[in-house]
Amino acid sequence: MSYHEINSTHSPDLRSWVDSANAPGADFPIQNLPFGVFSRKGANEIPRICIAIGDHVLDLAACAHSGLLDSLGEAMVDACEEMQLNRLMSLGAKSWSELRSRLSVLLREDNGELRDDAGLRAHALVSMTDVDMHMPAAIGDYTDFYASIHHATNVGSMFRPDNPLLPNYKYLPVGYHGRASSVVVSGAPVRRPLGQVAANDSGPPVFGPSRLLDYELEVGFFIGPGNELGEPIRIHAAADHIFGLCLLNDWSARDIQRWEYQPLGPFLAKSFATSISPWVVTMQALAPFRIPAFARPEGDPQPLAHLYSETDQQRGGIDLQLEVWLSSERMRAEAISPQMLSRGNFRDMYWTLAQMVAHHTSNGCNLRPGDLLGSGTVSGAENASRGSLLELAWRGSEPLALITGETRSFLEDGDEVILRGYCSGNAARRIGFGECRGIVKPAPAVRQ
Amino acid sequence: MSYHEINSTHSPDLRSWVDSANAPGADFPIQNLPFGVFSRKGANEIPRICIAIGDHVLDLAACAHSGLLDSLGEAMVDACEEMQLNRLMSLGAKSWSELRSRLSVLLREDNGELRDDAGLRAHALVSMTDVDMHMPAAIGDYTDFYASIHHATNVGSMFRPDNPLLPNYKYLPVGYHGRASSVVVSGAPVRRPLGQVAANDSGPPVFGPSRLLDYELEVGFFIGPGNELGEPIRIHAAADHIFGLCLLNDWSARDIQRWEYQPLGPFLAKSFATSISPWVVTMQALAPFRIPAFARPEGDPQPLAHLYSETDQQRGGIDLQLEVWLSSERMRAEAISPQMLSRGNFRDMYWTLAQMVAHHTSNGCNLRPGDLLGSGTVSGAENASRGSLLELAWRGSEPLALITGETRSFLEDGDEVILRGYCSGNAARRIGFGECRGIVKPAPAVRQ
Repeated sequence: MSYHEINSTHSPDLRSWVDSANAPGADFPIQNLPFGVFSRKGANEIPRICIAIGDHVLDLAACAHSGLLDSLGEAMVDACEEMQLNRLMSLGAKSWSELRSRLSVLLREDNGELRDDAGLRAHALVSMTDVDMHMPAAIGDYTDFYASIHHATNVGSMFRPDNPLLPNYKYLPVGYHGRASSVVVSGAPVRRPLGQVAANDSGPPVFGPSRLLDYELEVGFFIGPGNELGEPIRIHAAADHIFGLCLLNDWSARDIQRWEYQPLGPFLAKSFATSISPWVVTMQALAPFRIPAFARPEGDPQPLAHLYSETDQQRGGIDLQLEVWLSSERMRAEAISPQMLSRGNFRDMYWTLAQMVAHHTSNGCNLRPGDLLGSGTVSGAENASRGSLLELAWRGSEPLALITGETRSFLEDGDEVILRGYCSGNAARRIGFGECRGIVKPAPAVRQ
Repeated sequence: MSYHEINSTHSPDLRSWVDSANAPGADFPIQNLPFGVFSRKGANEIPRICIAIGDHVLDLAACAHSGLLDSLGEAMVDACEEMQLNRLMSLGAKSWSELRSRLSVLLREDNGELRDDAGLRAHALVSMTDVDMHMPAAIGDYTDFYASIHHATNVGSMFRPDNPLLPNYKYLPVGYHGRASSVVVSGAPVRRPLGQVAANDSGPPVFGPSRLLDYELEVGFFIGPGNELGEPIRIHAAADHIFGLCLLNDWSARDIQRWEYQPLGPFLAKSFATSISPWVVTMQALAPFRIPAFARPEGDPQPLAHLYSETDQQRGGIDLQLEVWLSSERMRAEAISPQMLSRGNFRDMYWTLAQMVAHHTSNGCNLRPGDLLGSGTVSGAENASRGSLLELAWRGSEPLALITGETRSFLEDGDEVILRGYCSGNAARRIGFGECRGIVKPAPAVRQ
């Protein structure tokens, strides 16, 4: 039942009767089974819950309707017939494990229940090329953290060279409330924002398109069961409240942020769009890739008691490779493949997911099923693992060279940013996250 | 149809057959008709939409069921049968005006449609003493501004005596994303938050109950029709997107905020609770109290073009009296009435509601029906109009004397904070907001 328990559903020898799931580099083998929400392209139908298996999606509503999930009880059947994942998320880790086990059996090479039912299979198993993916959950609140000490140090040192990290950084996972309404799913275009930015001279600010548009490579995580207002979730219980992970691009307008952010923090510099990948990879699927929490350097304080648990220290990290790719308009015109800009790993985060949940609720703040929390930009110690253009091009002082001969300090209109993530190694099957894509569209005209 | 149009529904001579609505000091005369959501006490029934009239609520679902609202069309009838105001909010100003006109007619002294239908009246008109009030809307996102220059100057001068206002303050309405999940309706208890605060010496921070708990007197406003992501609402159109106003208490833990807030702004210092009054006073009801926007002192910059409209300058202010009252546990034990701590006026805000909406969406951020925006603490130029204890007791240096002999620099457990608001004068009937109440409960025990 536990998040950390590795069981038969993880066996690397397990194969599916959906052939594409067995390909060595597949993102979605039978060991993964991430959740999403889809509809058939052009079918004008209500979105439904599904899982990814190979290059197909399996319609869970269809499975539930047909009775294939009856053994899991009425609450689970109802949850699988919803239009988003919130109800499934609310059921808790025991229910998720039961569903995972059942789906693993249904898709196993040697199981004929669905495989041999040609009618149901034709209805419930749909090629990914024939579906549109939708927001996996209705996000009640979105919170973004700042949990990479490398990112915080990089950004801090640009503005405060002598004192890059603020005094609170090593004592609590710094975070802020983000905008839920503008979280969009991979593939949605992102319009360059208009905004006020400081003038170059000492004159009044000017209003116009952001000129310092950036991405931020992050990991998002969805809350499962929530907590009542006034009742903190303790660190020991925090992992039970996390349903799963996605990729997240925290698009950022650096020039708008710089002018607006004092004293209340980022606002319009972020709220024009946040993109997430359509697939939510469950904590169960990630069990083989749990590792110790980030090793704090000698001299750093240990977490205070309310943010410390032995289990979390031993298993709170995740060995998750993360990559950023860029495709410029010119690359696409010249049929050149996207170029990788950076590669990092989620193991480098200073704070664990459980610490973020425990901190977030320590004041009694209530989380609800489907709430989205972002990790903050994932940057590592190496230059090549910096998770934003701001860092990679060091505030514009070291523009990136693209293979087309173009350069980038910040994003141009037509740039498509592609985030990828996967866990591999550890004698386990690769667990992929798929992609999170977004293409930058021109700003609207300035009209009064 | 316009917000600013004063018509027969505002006539001070208009009387209702609900007698209590005609009392001179009544908050809810027939000229007001604020919206809320109620259920009968102890009836275990689904909440329904209502308006306040005198000391009663009028059940709009009952009115809709009985056919009394048929002339307004199916969309309005459906909206009045919802459990919250979101759908009504989405319909827009023309629909709201039509509903207001119809309700005004139905409740008018000389109209017998409802008055003379004893069965329906007994069902649809319920004494306020017999109802529980609920959250008026499902709040998708909650944003809090900082629009009182007096408040910003007071708070800024405590921390930066030489430079209280930051350079952006007079160019844009500073705001930040708040937490939607912890917005509660008047009457809900507020548990003192636990949190990390800086130690007195230079040692590590300590985790425990906040010792500097405060209230903030604010005005909240609900969004009506929203905007599409990427499509800013221009200042000229902004007023059409505002449904109505409520009272809002932005509870604040000053010690938690001070330690956590750099560089990303307030987070746990605010997200443990935000209280709002149950009645949403419509922009139509407030039409007689619209006044010019705050007169910027000589030398202050004019708003940039995207935040400037002539109409907004002439009618963007609201003459709304606001009061804060306190009832300590000892006052209640000794049967002493609550004590007024301060009185201010919403006319003193540096930024208008329309400017906040235009700014919020200027980057393309989408607002949705039912989103809540807070004005920020309403403080005036006078000491007696300061909207928080932090300001009234000047950071603890001038503790407030209560009539019991107690003193207050910050809130104590058992303190009940009561916000009140009303518009009066201007040859119009008083438009009351009712109350926003919250009582401070002790923090939970610190457990690991």
